[in-house]
Amino acid sequence: MIGKVNLQEQFARFHDYWSPKIVASVNDYDVKLVKVRGEFVWHQHDETDEVFLVTAGQLRIQLQDRDDVVLSPGELLVVPRGVRHRPVAGEETHLVLLESHATVNTGDAQRAGTVGERLD
Amino acid sequence: MIGKVNLQEQFARFHDYWSPKIVASVNDYDVKLVKVRGEFVWHQHDETDEVFLVTAGQLRIQLQDRDDVVLSPGELLVVPRGVRHRPVAGEETHLVLLESHATVNTGDAQRAGTVGERLD
Repeated sequence: MIGKVNLQEQFARFHDYWSPKIVASVNDYDVKLVKVRGEFVWHQHDETDEVFLVTAGQLRIQLQDRDDVVLSPGELLVVPRGVRHRPVAGEETHLVLLESHATVNTGDAQRAGTVGERLD
Repeated sequence: MIGKVNLQEQFARFHDYWSPKIVASVNDYDVKLVKVRGEFVWHQHDETDEVFLVTAGQLRIQLQDRDDVVLSPGELLVVPRGVRHRPVAGEETHLVLLESHATVNTGDAQRAGTVGERLD
C-alpha cells in the first residue's frame, strides 16, 4: 500500500498536546505530527539531531547559552545533538518532526517520554 | 551556528528545475528543496525509501503497476525502496525531500544524477 498523507487531515484526527503521532516511515526514520501548547521540559538528545518544522502557530525554541529561535509556519530548525533546548508555544502550534525510530521526545529529561503512536 | 530555515525564502534563491538544494542536515540525512516541472525519468532506489512533500504546485507520481498518486501542497508520499516511479509536474512545483547523504536523484536510471548542492 502506497498512500499519500495529507498533513492537515492528519492533524485534524487528534487533539492532545506533546504526543507525537507517526504518519509515515522513511527507512529507519519516522515522520511524526505533534500539537503543542505551553512549555515543554528542558532536555537534550545526545545521540541524534532533532528537526522541527512548523505548519501552524508559532514555536519558540529556547537553547541553552544561545538566543531563542522563533519559528513560524514554513520554517524549520535543526537542533544538533547534545544541545539542551526547550520548545515553548504560546498558542496551539502544529509541528512536523523527523526522528529515528527509537527517539523519545523527552530525551535525557527525568520524565516519561514517548516515541509516538502510529496513526492508522 | 543554529539557524532556522524559511522554506519560502530558500525556494526564492534558485530557479533551476530537478536540481535539489540541501538546506539542512539531520544526522546522516539531508533536507533538500527542489523545483520541478515536466517529466522526470523513470527510476527506482533499491537501497532507500524516498519521501516527497509538496509545498506549492502539484506533483503526479507515476508508480509501476499501481495507480498514480497526485500530491497537492501539504501532502507527502513515501515511495518505498525498489518501487519504480516517475515524478511529473504540469506546472512549477516545489518539493521538500528527505534523503540520506548519498542518495542520487535518478536512482538506477542510466542518466547522470545529483545528490544536490548545499545552499549556504
